[in-house]
Amino acid sequence: MLITPGPLLSQINGPADLKSLDQAQLVQLCQELRQFIIDNVSIYGGHFGASLGVTELTVAVHYVFHAPYDQIVWDVGHQAYGHKILSGRRDQFHTNRQYKGISGFPKRKESEYDTFGVGHSSTSVSAALGMAVASKYKGLEDKQHVAIIGDGALTGGIAFEGLNHAGVSDSNLLIILNDNCMSIDPNVGALKDYLTDITTSQTYNRFKDDVWNLLGKLSKFGKNAQEIVSKVDQAVKSALLSQSNLFESLGLRYFGPVDGHDVDHLVAVMKDLKNIKGPKILHCVTVKGKGYGPAETGNKTTWHAPGTFDKITGEIHKKVHETPQAPKYQDVFGHTLLELAKMNDKIMGITPAMPSGSSMNIMMKAMPERAFDVGIAEQHAVTFSAGLATQGLIPFCNIYSSFMQRGYDQVVHDVCIQNLPVNFCLDRAGFAGADGPTHHGAYDIAYFRCLPNMIVSAPMNEEELRNLMFTAQIPREGKAFSIRYPRGQGVMPEWRTPFEKIEIGTGRKLREGSELAILTIGHIGNYAVEVCDKLEKQGIRIGHYDLRFVKPLDENLLHEIFLKYRKIITVEDGCVQGGFGSAVLEFMADHQYHAEVKRLGIPDAVIEHGEQIELHDECGFGPAGIESAVLTMLEAVARTV
Amino acid sequence: MLITPGPLLSQINGPADLKSLDQAQLVQLCQELRQFIIDNVSIYGGHFGASLGVTELTVAVHYVFHAPYDQIVWDVGHQAYGHKILSGRRDQFHTNRQYKGISGFPKRKESEYDTFGVGHSSTSVSAALGMAVASKYKGLEDKQHVAIIGDGALTGGIAFEGLNHAGVSDSNLLIILNDNCMSIDPNVGALKDYLTDITTSQTYNRFKDDVWNLLGKLSKFGKNAQEIVSKVDQAVKSALLSQSNLFESLGLRYFGPVDGHDVDHLVAVMKDLKNIKGPKILHCVTVKGKGYGPAETGNKTTWHAPGTFDKITGEIHKKVHETPQAPKYQDVFGHTLLELAKMNDKIMGITPAMPSGSSMNIMMKAMPERAFDVGIAEQHAVTFSAGLATQGLIPFCNIYSSFMQRGYDQVVHDVCIQNLPVNFCLDRAGFAGADGPTHHGAYDIAYFRCLPNMIVSAPMNEEELRNLMFTAQIPREGKAFSIRYPRGQGVMPEWRTPFEKIEIGTGRKLREGSELAILTIGHIGNYAVEVCDKLEKQGIRIGHYDLRFVKPLDENLLHEIFLKYRKIITVEDGCVQGGFGSAVLEFMADHQYHAEVKRLGIPDAVIEHGEQIELHDECGFGPAGIESAVLTMLEAVARTV
Repeated sequence: MLITPGPLLSQINGPADLKSLDQAQLVQLCQELRQFIIDNVSIYGGHFGASLGVTELTVAVHYVFHAPYDQIVWDVGHQAYGHKILSGRRDQFHTNRQYKGISGFPKRKESEYDTFGVGHSSTSVSAALGMAVASKYKGLEDKQHVAIIGDGALTGGIAFEGLNHAGVSDSNLLIILNDNCMSIDPNVGALKDYLTDITTSQTYNRFKDDVWNLLGKLSKFGKNAQEIVSKVDQAVKSALLSQSNLFESLGLRYFGPVDGHDVDHLVAVMKDLKNIKGPKILHCVTVKGKGYGPAETGNKTTWHAPGTFDKITGEIHKKVHETPQAPKYQDVFGHTLLELAKMNDKIMGITPAMPSGSSMNIMMKAMPERAFDVGIAEQHAVTFSAGLATQGLIPFCNIYSSFMQRGYDQVVHDVCIQNLPVNFCLDRAGFAGADGPTHHGAYDIAYFRCLPNMIVSAPMNEEELRNLMFTAQIPREGKAFSIRYPRGQGVMPEWRTPFEKIEIGTGRKLREGSELAILTIGHIGNYAVEVCDKLEKQGIRIGHYDLRFVKPLDENLLHEIFLKYRKIITVEDGCVQGGFGSAVLEFMADHQYHAEVKRLGIPDAVIEHGEQIELHDECGFGPAGIESAVLTMLEAVARTV
Repeated sequence: MLITPGPLLSQINGPADLKSLDQAQLVQLCQELRQFIIDNVSIYGGHFGASLGVTELTVAVHYVFHAPYDQIVWDVGHQAYGHKILSGRRDQFHTNRQYKGISGFPKRKESEYDTFGVGHSSTSVSAALGMAVASKYKGLEDKQHVAIIGDGALTGGIAFEGLNHAGVSDSNLLIILNDNCMSIDPNVGALKDYLTDITTSQTYNRFKDDVWNLLGKLSKFGKNAQEIVSKVDQAVKSALLSQSNLFESLGLRYFGPVDGHDVDHLVAVMKDLKNIKGPKILHCVTVKGKGYGPAETGNKTTWHAPGTFDKITGEIHKKVHETPQAPKYQDVFGHTLLELAKMNDKIMGITPAMPSGSSMNIMMKAMPERAFDVGIAEQHAVTFSAGLATQGLIPFCNIYSSFMQRGYDQVVHDVCIQNLPVNFCLDRAGFAGADGPTHHGAYDIAYFRCLPNMIVSAPMNEEELRNLMFTAQIPREGKAFSIRYPRGQGVMPEWRTPFEKIEIGTGRKLREGSELAILTIGHIGNYAVEVCDKLEKQGIRIGHYDLRFVKPLDENLLHEIFLKYRKIITVEDGCVQGGFGSAVLEFMADHQYHAEVKRLGIPDAVIEHGEQIELHDECGFGPAGIESAVLTMLEAVARTV
């Protein structure tokens, strides 16, 4: 079902069409754009609250600035639906986030209006500054560069690094701060308090006004007062105006706060700002979910990406299942962590801005003094965890696999090299699905297993996850322990199994075969079970081993395997370069085994978005791919025999 | 030669001894400590300016706080010599940075006074906050946690992430800002300007004073004025005192600036601060190199780590060579980049706070509008480079291998996934030498080669480096290009060779053998040349191939190799897990070759500090190790034949 856009929106095939509108029509356009997003997301799903919150900002930016000549950089990008719709993708928008459809995030390949690909947060200041410095070098003085960044994203360290550089550049950079007090969950930290304080109590502006009023009134008090006035005037100018604001401390001219839903005012302000050279920040206050009642007043985290819903009643569609379903891995993590924390008072929980996504909120609610949301700050999350570990506590630091990249140095330098027993739980390992390549957790096995003092594991099901977590909280000598698991459901509706310690570095023989064995790591092993079952019915019996640990490898089990089988298939939901399969090859080389090995996993390419199973099939390690690999290898045997 | 400490210092075997001194003796102790550092470093080398700059801070901190119960966390750590000397390592101090000697950085294994290992910057706030939160959870209300961080380190994003969290915690955290306007090179960025402004013009304090004075004087102007006073008073308290300072904006109580060389005053201030609960910052202004004339007034970058010198004349010892020496790789990079930039006006240079260490300063001096020091900000350096690349420019982003870990997500997310042709030059790849494990560049081959759209290369000598750089600036379709090279000298005194394009993904056959071939990557290949030469004189002829690219591998060459040789040794100056050797194993498996392969490289362990050759030997890939591996493999042949 194609959604019909409103009369104005249906004429907008690009920003040029938008510019031909009379400014008085923008309010209506905003309404139509908002309605189009509501109509689409209610049927097709996707991110929701964020794009509604920036509707007026989006229209104003495209009305005032001249994309694609001017460079508009969206931070994070899940709020860029309006931008996509206005920049020529209205009629493709219903394919948003679907396999082979348009991306849910700005993407350079997709449009010249998408100046910078995003998904992870906090990059826009640095990217836009790079563009602005390039334009300056090229002598393009009229070219504008706009970074639109949320207050949540602003807590990420790279944003601060970017501001620190921007503040001393004289580049043509406008940072629009979209302040809605939220990341996906409510934003946290001192910066948020500061922004809230500016916005709500208006102390900054009130104080400025007060001092000006005071100075005005003082003039009637005669010469002595005038002297004071003059002195204070100077001090006020040099100190108050240039330094009393955090952003002005960093060399950025600060404007605002302004109402981010007043499109007329936004257009006027942006037009003015175009004429002010140098780096500057416009602080806009917006409401996430603005214009759709349930999203505006309801739980903003729920309405961040609600799935499909009834747009009239605001009821979010939930799948109804006739049989008990397996839980999401994240919930197994969340509930299990709380269970363990009740048994072990040294356990602490840490999440960088993903309390609901990781289900850390379960422990945060039950034990607020022992579980922390530290904001969008993966680096800090890791080193803070390391600090806790130095005091004998047992941190479980939960970071999505792809976001873990951002804390990589901290894992190396602050954890592994220092022999600190920090536990890392890597959610969303493997393909993230509809979020696409920026969110795929493709590289963690490779980038973790090369580190000394790092245990790398992945559970094949809920029970294994629970037991790995149980094992990870047992005191051990200074090694980090990582447990990776995918987005989505496991396989065990009855998942609250009793805890059992797993010997670190031991795998499991699930099925014995003769000629060929499949070695798997993690949840993806369930595909192998499927394949083995199917082939067994055809009389083909192949071995299946769940290695459970990439590091240390179960060498006893591997010796058994390589002594028995001549053909090996490794399967992993991670990159094949340097991953689990390569670890197996290293073992083989070190022990001079010469089996034939086929490695299945994520190939050396950027894999786009889609359902997980669609992507597994595309990469040849879905059930069909595994079966085909087995049969090809066995045929090769048949041929050579 | 053991240095004799002064009479007070010779009694200090730990902080307890220091506390037994009368406060009046601290000035003398500072003198003796400073002298002891000068005496030692002038003879044995090491970091210099930083430790001299914090002598009084160090003495005051250990006088006031009760380590090891109280937790003192040094950021970066090259300034912690005084701390080491005062905390029981005075008599080992002459072994500083030597193989098997004490580390040049705080190190948990070395002493209970080293609360957190460092080397990379900007981690202290997060680590100390973790400790403070742990203490609070344990009910240790009296326990103090002190992070000592420089103004340079404060620009690193993780420090900001830590401040953002600290500002909303009510933990017992004191951050001492050691503000000397320097990192290794002069500090840059808006934050530096801000700190300088606070310190030099004292606007913040002057303004505060002015307003108080004004308010005092106003009272005599009668009722109307008193009303204004009351109003302004309120505004001043709520706005000026709580928000006019950048740190107070972030929820930290700010104290200072104070003279960081007045030990009496420092002791008094710290004693006061002990009694103030909650997160707070003490801004100390210090002079790098303080107390040693040449370091204080001379080039501070030179005196950061001057090598050995004549402490009387201040003359830095330079090795005198009778024959022309090969240049340092970093200088080949620096000069070559400028040469290329003169030919190609799209080239831009980026360094995060390492202009002299990377020799980017050569281009920065000649072309200031095209080469940038962005501060200690690896993440920003990468994404800023990506932003430049979107505009068609050709960035050469130079980051030490171990610091590149801190920009990892940006390489994945902002460069590789977006198909942006950014060039990364990874200096200090392999063992960093005396700086030790925090600075070793051990993992970059593994963590880069798993990424799509990433070319991974390493030159074996200066000519190769020049040609790789030349190749990297030729326009290509969206792939990142990384070139890794070690700290120290190359092998070609006549290094200014004419440029020649290298076909990407091609290696070199250096010598043909029969039974066994050595495959090397990068500078370490010169060891193999040595070994081959030596063995050839004994009648043993082995093959040697310089692969030059880890990714893409030269498949033609590898087919040739695996068709010819049954025994292969791979040698790399990087981790053997997932590294170059593993890439070769993957090729073998994919093409069903079954040679015997021995991988030499950095083993799965934390390798300590020492001269590079000492560490190569320790890890078995120095010349002796390679030779031994060859002979062992050949003997095995002999035995099996």
